[in-house]
Amino acid sequence: MPEQTPIILTTDFGVEDVYVGVLKGVILSINRTAAIVDLTHSIRPQDIHQAAVIIHENYRYFPDGSVHLCIVDPGVGTDRKIIAVRAYNQFFVGPDNGVFSKIITADQPVAIYQVNNRSQFLEKVSKTFHGRDIMAPIAARISSGISIDTVGPQLGQEDCVTILFRKPEFTNNRLLGEIESVDRFGNLITNIVRDDLKPFNYLANLQILLKSQVIIFNEGSYGDSAENRAAALLNSSERLEICVKNGSAADQLHAQVGEKVVVRR
Amino acid sequence: MPEQTPIILTTDFGVEDVYVGVLKGVILSINRTAAIVDLTHSIRPQDIHQAAVIIHENYRYFPDGSVHLCIVDPGVGTDRKIIAVRAYNQFFVGPDNGVFSKIITADQPVAIYQVNNRSQFLEKVSKTFHGRDIMAPIAARISSGISIDTVGPQLGQEDCVTILFRKPEFTNNRLLGEIESVDRFGNLITNIVRDDLKPFNYLANLQILLKSQVIIFNEGSYGDSAENRAAALLNSSERLEICVKNGSAADQLHAQVGEKVVVRR
Amino acid sequence: MPEQTPIILTTDFGVEDVYVGVLKGVILSINRTAAIVDLTHSIRPQDIHQAAVIIHENYRYFPDGSVHLCIVDPGVGTDRKIIAVRAYNQFFVGPDNGVFSKIITADQPVAIYQVNNRSQFLEKVSKTFHGRDIMAPIAARISSGISIDTVGPQLGQEDCVTILFRKPEFTNNRLLGEIESVDRFGNLITNIVRDDLKPFNYLANLQILLKSQVIIFNEGSYGDSAENRAAALLNSSERLEICVKNGSAADQLHAQVGEKVVVRR
Repeated sequence: MPEQTPIILTTDFGVEDVYVGVLKGVILSINRTAAIVDLTHSIRPQDIHQAAVIIHENYRYFPDGSVHLCIVDPGVGTDRKIIAVRAYNQFFVGPDNGVFSKIITADQPVAIYQVNNRSQFLEKVSKTFHGRDIMAPIAARISSGISIDTVGPQLGQEDCVTILFRKPEFTNNRLLGEIESVDRFGNLITNIVRDDLKPFNYLANLQILLKSQVIIFNEGSYGDSAENRAAALLNSSERLEICVKNGSAADQLHAQVGEKVVVRR
Repeated sequence: MPEQTPIILTTDFGVEDVYVGVLKGVILSINRTAAIVDLTHSIRPQDIHQAAVIIHENYRYFPDGSVHLCIVDPGVGTDRKIIAVRAYNQFFVGPDNGVFSKIITADQPVAIYQVNNRSQFLEKVSKTFHGRDIMAPIAARISSGISIDTVGPQLGQEDCVTILFRKPEFTNNRLLGEIESVDRFGNLITNIVRDDLKPFNYLANLQILLKSQVIIFNEGSYGDSAENRAAALLNSSERLEICVKNGSAADQLHAQVGEKVVVRR
Repeated sequence: MPEQTPIILTTDFGVEDVYVGVLKGVILSINRTAAIVDLTHSIRPQDIHQAAVIIHENYRYFPDGSVHLCIVDPGVGTDRKIIAVRAYNQFFVGPDNGVFSKIITADQPVAIYQVNNRSQFLEKVSKTFHGRDIMAPIAARISSGISIDTVGPQLGQEDCVTILFRKPEFTNNRLLGEIESVDRFGNLITNIVRDDLKPFNYLANLQILLKSQVIIFNEGSYGDSAENRAAALLNSSERLEICVKNGSAADQLHAQVGEKVVVRR
């Protein structure tokens, strides 16, 4: 049996409307053996930065040949380009607005193509839903085996939009970061990754300051912490995360996305 | 490889409860090669009208042979019929309460059958979940290739429930419509489609009145509008839509489903 | 064509975050022909009891060979075990914390194995996401045909955590139960099943007391009840449920999970 090729969707469409279902219809109309996976449809509306972080952090859990279709596209219908990218033995299709910034600037081989071969689009292209009319068809065709260089001319990285990511700053023996997202459990996930903590030499007993509380770093897991007490750990994506065992850190600390976090010895 | 047949689900079940997952289990128990797609499970509870509009507007994005299973079924367990329909080279299975009104009254060939062949149902049929016990099995069997005329006797269109759709009214050079839905981006989607605007001859500079604001029609896309200012356009389903670039029209105009909209020159 | 094997996901992850999508990526990396079904991701965070009830009530709608992956795992990273179970011609993979209590204590043959064959895990195992690093790979491997006894040593039922379920109590000719869940329609679903009602001999005209209202038992379906009036029936899972035709019982009776319910003649 020919293997199903995963097509992974990352959008800001939510799941209440029909937009996601329609994308799947278009994909299956072109490639009936696609295995369509929802990574998330809860990107904050038009938040290119969040999409870029999520795609970069999670493509690695999908098999070779997977096609990532990212539709966070506030510029739909303007002259922003659409691109198809081959990197890490996978493919990425989406608007050229920075959603693949961390993919195309990575230190490894990348091939970028501008999508402009109209014969590969839906027959009728609307001005407001290129995800349905252009990007889903391209993703489906790539997943069914067309060569990526048929979608249009190759581009250099310098031809593409890349966005800047606020990195944590290390000064005066303190690392300054922020809360980047809050998950369903109320865990507070920061923009600080393991590598950012290197200047501290070792992790034990680091102090994290958040909303004038001092939280002690813990090298273990959720279950190891004291009940109902804020703890900090490196989560499954190697990010510094503040959590409360059997509770919600967001509720307990009244913290939200954007809140500042300081790490010190 | 035999192709997967898409089965498309449209329900008012939401995604919190297990009802949708159970439907999928029943389908896969009968046809393991089904490709099950969620169109939406966010139909307003028991809103047959909304389901009818959504199915009619979106079936066209699915391939030939697709089976649409619609379970918005306030009359479950009463003597309302269950029907299976062949139209547009696709199939539609659901209660006979009007959810397929726009399909069976369309100006093209339709074959309608009453589902009553008990040997095709689950062995035990509850009084409150015919979606699971009758309709999902029928959809799965049709997707796996049984002939639709085995489900029961053929019906005429006049034997089936059809519902009326409030159409926009044109009087005194004004078109009166209303907001029919609001999407995740806060876009206000009306019941006015391109054809309804024909009496105005051309679209440029039409004025849309909503909550005592005047909004100017725009032939372009979201990106073409001025930032933070309400604009009106024909969306990707050819419906008149009021939007705000990089913002929410619903929030900015405090408008909801049911709000009146007037179009004038 | 080799048949797809269903893998059914039951978690407390919600659908906003990427956790569910990542599980699917890991599964498809190991078994590309898996048919992944979401039963629900809306288990209340860390509510092992709710997960146990839902899995037991719904596995029966899935075909032989299905693999149920349940990740409600507050003890992740502690020394709680992970188990794989064969029962009812299906498989169950999850933490040994009681989520499979009703499966492993059922009156039929069960084989339980402790998951500890590290060669079957992801190469790198985090301390906080064993769902991704251990349980999803094991479920995928079982679905692709490995023998379940390769995952680790066999366990007895007495080696596993089982939890107690609050059962309705019958005293003084009254049955005392409670609301166990509320669905999207506002239906109030109790912990009382058909068998619990046996002491009453027959069901007609039973009275249900909820929040000082008296509701009359109805042997039919939703449609048979009077409009806007609370009614009680046995739902499609044979549970006593309080509903309001074309309305929400939860709203009308201001009732929530945990509310007491009394049944009397």
